[in-house]
Amino acid sequence: MTEHTSYSIQPADFTLTAIGRVASDYPDKFGVPRQPGLAPAGRGILHLLPPFDAPQAVRGLENVSHLWLTFIFHRSPQRWTPLVRPPRLGGNTRIGVFATRSTHRPNRLGLSLVRLEKIEIENGVRLHLSGHDLIDGTPVLDIKPYLPWVESHPDAQAGFAPGPPPGYRVDFSAKAEAALAQRDDEESLRDLIVQVLGQDPRPAYHQDTPARVYGVSLRDVNVRFCIQGDADSLRMHVVDIE
Amino acid sequence: MTEHTSYSIQPADFTLTAIGRVASDYPDKFGVPRQPGLAPAGRGILHLLPPFDAPQAVRGLENVSHLWLTFIFHRSPQRWTPLVRPPRLGGNTRIGVFATRSTHRPNRLGLSLVRLEKIEIENGVRLHLSGHDLIDGTPVLDIKPYLPWVESHPDAQAGFAPGPPPGYRVDFSAKAEAALAQRDDEESLRDLIVQVLGQDPRPAYHQDTPARVYGVSLRDVNVRFCIQGDADSLRMHVVDIE
Repeated sequence: MTEHTSYSIQPADFTLTAIGRVASDYPDKFGVPRQPGLAPAGRGILHLLPPFDAPQAVRGLENVSHLWLTFIFHRSPQRWTPLVRPPRLGGNTRIGVFATRSTHRPNRLGLSLVRLEKIEIENGVRLHLSGHDLIDGTPVLDIKPYLPWVESHPDAQAGFAPGPPPGYRVDFSAKAEAALAQRDDEESLRDLIVQVLGQDPRPAYHQDTPARVYGVSLRDVNVRFCIQGDADSLRMHVVDIE
Repeated sequence: MTEHTSYSIQPADFTLTAIGRVASDYPDKFGVPRQPGLAPAGRGILHLLPPFDAPQAVRGLENVSHLWLTFIFHRSPQRWTPLVRPPRLGGNTRIGVFATRSTHRPNRLGLSLVRLEKIEIENGVRLHLSGHDLIDGTPVLDIKPYLPWVESHPDAQAGFAPGPPPGYRVDFSAKAEAALAQRDDEESLRDLIVQVLGQDPRPAYHQDTPARVYGVSLRDVNVRFCIQGDADSLRMHVVDIE
């Protein structure tokens, strides 16, 4: 193993092409789960794009339960800084970008483990996903099967985010309940709202303004919610579903 | 969630830049473990390249045990086909490229989970890795911490590769033993040879030529080996270490 100081003069740029795009329950950045799997009710469809949409390319995926998606954080700025402020540290502590999963990173590459629910191969290839954290329109660069015997390390040390964030209770106003009751997707939309709000999607620097009503876009609705209770018994209250 | 048929006309090309390059125990493709972790003795150093080599960018990684590396299979051809023949299926069965971890894939993107052994931040940033599967010179596009509470799914279904490949016994000729005994890295080189040969690095289509002597490059040596025994008691015999 040599030091290879000549590396820096080798060509280092690569042009990559989206193999597909995601149609997602999450129209905007605000409300997207901070990791995949935190909102199992989150649905998405990965549409493969030509020339990557041959049904043969997904042959064998019917026996695979979890997929790695490598994608571009296309709504994040291209600029990056060596230090970022993760929400899990309250938004005040700065840490190295490569020690985080921040979207503000060189190359804007994302990596998400998602569940594969269904494969459609009529009129193009569509992979139905759940438990994802991808914004609508996300360009996907690669799909790989998850290998549990290589990639499952329950005892790994994960630095500042050793476990899932705390979950908060979510309740609904009578008006919000009435709006939900009129939906065909009542049950799955309720699950999605509880899972997304339960993680407290507010940016860290907003957590001192309890009176404010926030709006989060999920599917085709705007979910308006506020914070109730004190620090020890915080809950998310859904005011309305528009 | 809408169908977004307009996706195909959106720009889909992205230019990505190597943030670092790997100096590796594996000079060539032949012999590289088929998954990371199969040869824990395999060492590598990821050298960050300017302008990504600020020590701040890795601040916090000292508390992280496992890293995801997203990289380019830079020695693989740019062409790809929808169907590939994985070595695990004997090299005869064709399966969709997205249902495999084959290097012959669109965008040539690789993803490996590696152990982070040590961080050096004097005169540039160097991450010391083990258990990797990267060829010398591999351009790395991103580094992320592994999150066990999100990414550890021991019960996931992995299709045609549900578990590790069988391991074979490895023995050494007297000549090979003598060559090993003269090395400063005797112990770790022996471990590396046993782990790399134990997986049978031969291409699937060569497995009917038992008399042949193969050569695999590891660190600065050429390990010459042949196959001994019959199908039920196959072992890898190290003839010489040059």
